[in-house]
Amino acid sequence: MPLNVLRDLIRIADKTNTLDRRARIYYHVVGSPHLWKAVVNITRRIVELQEVHPDAQGPVDYWEFERVQDACNSHPDVLAEIAKLKLPIRAKVINDPWAYGTDEGKERRRLFQCYMYIVLNNDPEANHYSLPAPFAPVFDAHTLELCWIDRLPLNSGFETTAETQPWNAVRPVEYAEDILGQDYFRKDLKPLQIFQPDGPSFKIRGRSISWQKWNFHLGWNLREGPVLNNITYDGRSLFYRISMSEMTVPYGDPRTPYHRKQAFDLGDSGFGLTSNTLELGCDCLGQIHYFDGYRCDSEGQPVLMKNVVCMHEVDQGIGWKHTNFRNNLSSVVRDRQLVLQCTATVANYEYILAFILDQTANLHIEVKATGIVSTMPSNEGVHHEWGTTVAPGVTAANHQHLFNVRIDPSLDGRENSIVYEDCVPIGGSDKSLDPFGNAFRVQSTTIKQPGAYDLDLTKSRTYKIVNPSHINSISGKPVGYKLHAIPSQMMMMSPSTFNYKRGVFASRPIWVTKYRDDELYAAGEFTNQSREDTGLAIWSEREEDLENEDVILWHTFGVTHVTRPEGK
Amino acid sequence: MPLNVLRDLIRIADKTNTLDRRARIYYHVVGSPHLWKAVVNITRRIVELQEVHPDAQGPVDYWEFERVQDACNSHPDVLAEIAKLKLPIRAKVINDPWAYGTDEGKERRRLFQCYMYIVLNNDPEANHYSLPAPFAPVFDAHTLELCWIDRLPLNSGFETTAETQPWNAVRPVEYAEDILGQDYFRKDLKPLQIFQPDGPSFKIRGRSISWQKWNFHLGWNLREGPVLNNITYDGRSLFYRISMSEMTVPYGDPRTPYHRKQAFDLGDSGFGLTSNTLELGCDCLGQIHYFDGYRCDSEGQPVLMKNVVCMHEVDQGIGWKHTNFRNNLSSVVRDRQLVLQCTATVANYEYILAFILDQTANLHIEVKATGIVSTMPSNEGVHHEWGTTVAPGVTAANHQHLFNVRIDPSLDGRENSIVYEDCVPIGGSDKSLDPFGNAFRVQSTTIKQPGAYDLDLTKSRTYKIVNPSHINSISGKPVGYKLHAIPSQMMMMSPSTFNYKRGVFASRPIWVTKYRDDELYAAGEFTNQSREDTGLAIWSEREEDLENEDVILWHTFGVTHVTRPEGK
Repeated sequence: MPLNVLRDLIRIADKTNTLDRRARIYYHVVGSPHLWKAVVNITRRIVELQEVHPDAQGPVDYWEFERVQDACNSHPDVLAEIAKLKLPIRAKVINDPWAYGTDEGKERRRLFQCYMYIVLNNDPEANHYSLPAPFAPVFDAHTLELCWIDRLPLNSGFETTAETQPWNAVRPVEYAEDILGQDYFRKDLKPLQIFQPDGPSFKIRGRSISWQKWNFHLGWNLREGPVLNNITYDGRSLFYRISMSEMTVPYGDPRTPYHRKQAFDLGDSGFGLTSNTLELGCDCLGQIHYFDGYRCDSEGQPVLMKNVVCMHEVDQGIGWKHTNFRNNLSSVVRDRQLVLQCTATVANYEYILAFILDQTANLHIEVKATGIVSTMPSNEGVHHEWGTTVAPGVTAANHQHLFNVRIDPSLDGRENSIVYEDCVPIGGSDKSLDPFGNAFRVQSTTIKQPGAYDLDLTKSRTYKIVNPSHINSISGKPVGYKLHAIPSQMMMMSPSTFNYKRGVFASRPIWVTKYRDDELYAAGEFTNQSREDTGLAIWSEREEDLENEDVILWHTFGVTHVTRPEGK
Repeated sequence: MPLNVLRDLIRIADKTNTLDRRARIYYHVVGSPHLWKAVVNITRRIVELQEVHPDAQGPVDYWEFERVQDACNSHPDVLAEIAKLKLPIRAKVINDPWAYGTDEGKERRRLFQCYMYIVLNNDPEANHYSLPAPFAPVFDAHTLELCWIDRLPLNSGFETTAETQPWNAVRPVEYAEDILGQDYFRKDLKPLQIFQPDGPSFKIRGRSISWQKWNFHLGWNLREGPVLNNITYDGRSLFYRISMSEMTVPYGDPRTPYHRKQAFDLGDSGFGLTSNTLELGCDCLGQIHYFDGYRCDSEGQPVLMKNVVCMHEVDQGIGWKHTNFRNNLSSVVRDRQLVLQCTATVANYEYILAFILDQTANLHIEVKATGIVSTMPSNEGVHHEWGTTVAPGVTAANHQHLFNVRIDPSLDGRENSIVYEDCVPIGGSDKSLDPFGNAFRVQSTTIKQPGAYDLDLTKSRTYKIVNPSHINSISGKPVGYKLHAIPSQMMMMSPSTFNYKRGVFASRPIWVTKYRDDELYAAGEFTNQSREDTGLAIWSEREEDLENEDVILWHTFGVTHVTRPEGK
């Protein structure tokens, strides 16, 4: 398999420039359970690294994912369980294979937990998540063996039924128009159209984009999805690289097998690999430009992923306004923005990731979590504290989404410092300085060592990238770029849990490290069935000088999602 | 004066329906320093209340504001100071009268602090804020006497020059296009046009508006600006009234007279009174509908304020999306929103207040703080910690903007409760319940007494309006409406300061009270030169049962604004 990959990659490389191009390749040798990793220097046509990772699991692969799905759908023991449901004719049961997650690291086989769902009609958009089945087989992805079948708890407690019981029929909750019918949808929303008669304001050369005072290169890969490189504003360097680094989704239900549910949607699956290919155009208004991506198939052949990233402009209302109250004359500028967006579908969830640039040198990173909540079957009438009943016999588990963004700054040069500024009152402490008690000042602290740092809303604590050797001519202070952090509840699980050990990055909002090659992913390179965070947990422990150096700033943010029903 | 007001109001009332209409009137009897308040029942043509408030100051009045401005611009002592600046010919000095603020309550006269600015050209949009003059006269608004002239500190310390020195000429920083010239502005932004060929999706009857599943009445007044009343969604009652209640802007500079700067922009001036009248149309795209307001002049005559509120629809990108990964078929809905917006110009600042309704029953309250920072003169080359040098010889003071929103809910009825929910891990405490340590639960606390309450990001604390007697048929829990609070640094000044005593509402993010008539303004009815908060500080102290009652939820949020220059 690696040879095929190598051949294809070399073919691609020959068409590119002479910079040394490298490809990182994960593969399994058929018949062996072990993960192999190779680094291929495509330009020089040599394999620079080839090593086995006996204790690690690589990310989920499309091909294996489908093999497991098929194995589960056709396995006699599974079919026997399905039979016990005594479903109506024409009903079928399908499954979503989930990365196995963690079980305190006991299981080292490459496992998938298949969550089963009932489908009552043949519509390709039938919402099977509204009809979860009460059992979940576990398969070995290498041997395609059925390891065991977990029976799911249907009441508030841990107990499960010894025998799968006939299905207690309920009506599915659908979302698709051709199932619900036209009448279900609102008819009183009048069209709103956006026209750009002279075309968009951006210019594109290959994957280099210029818009307003911005210039940057748009990268893309299977793991991170879109990546911005060499970002400059008005000819000044701002960032070397900005990317979504990782996300983990721990679930708050202690009942087996749910306690294992902890997805790492970048490390396990990949925002690029799971990106919607917008063949039919994307879901945006105005003039859209698309960018393609590539994945490789099980043979290592490149597979085109059409239109995985879309780019367009939006108008975000008033950007700035001032009116002279003496004569009512006003000046106003609007807030035009450039949006680069992708939608990653990870089974039931959609993540809409956008990098948004505006006309005042702000770079916004936006994640919309949408799609469908992850559902569990319950006996009718059962409500419990691990989630919310969202439909008859269906509970949606409470969970957290914890994202990490990696910011590699180059503010007027590669040597930068990270500082945080606190707004603190002088207070009674110094009456001569603050006779009336209204005074406050900004206290600046430079981060000198790698580590994890906190936010402090009581001080409006703000983290800044500064270049100590470039002084603003007006303010007399070093030039800086502020991180507008999103204060969030961090991972709730304690340091003794596997959830925490696997995703230490999710325990603190701010991380600072010194740049090293191949340190891109907050939870480390291999997250699938991982037992520990091999990323920030380790890199942040190094003793290195961070002042006026090549620093990396990482920000963890997210939501605790307490689910709710849509109906009355 | 009150008689004129009465006559005019009755004339208006005769044209309206038969509900008892009342007007609150603030006035001064010429020659007396005291504030009078009257409540006139317009329908019954009687004065229901007429009382003197000897210790209070009413809000700023347009007419008096102009009288003070003129008195300051023409007073011989002020002109003498201006002469000392030795300004170029054709240069003039103008002033912004500021509400005096606080001086520990010593001064009880009705005072205005006039901040003086140099204008070098006759352009009506010349940015005088970039050329602050070094002295600030104080005038009595009743007698128009010059009380004294404050000399402004020009270095980092408290000391001021005994004599006003000749102006050290610097170039102004302008914003207006006809001063800067076309070449100054970007030419590479292509037009983006929004068309609604079938018109907007909203319906209007008088000031009653229906859009999508929303129905509400748009009120408006001089103090609060736009107010939403009787808000229903899909036929269900959500809110009785939603309004911006107050905002205070304490400044962090201890040097006299700056220590006095603490604007209450609703109580002192009014978001309605200072609203831009958009005669030339507003600054929005798409199909706009306008609403008018009224103020009264010094004689009590009503004055039309044209187009003080604009309403239009916007498209906010993807609202919801799901793709079936098995077949790549996706369903998507866009996020259409209805925006009701006004722009209040309070001297140098603009506040753009918007109520935004969406298609999923969310009601967003948005405030954009824009315009021009409040500036102070400094000797060239002087930098100090009370602000940032934003132009040669100009410092912009650090300050806070603390807003309060008043939410009067009627969720499926007037009897509601306020609860907060914390997301807390079970943790090691109960191994039998949480064997793996991943479990968390939602702890709900019902607020039983009026008071001030805090946010807690470490628990994702969420405040909810619930109706305990209406149970959601699916979840089995009381119906609720969540406050998505904005965690902010509260007022920094300590309880011993006048800043704090005047705006206690700004010291805590969440307040809950029991409904009483005329309790609308977080800092109380009279904020101008106030010495204490006569609103939430008092109402939250009452011992009343709040469970399943007519409750009011108040949210304080804001920003600490550490100013920065725009140039390199």
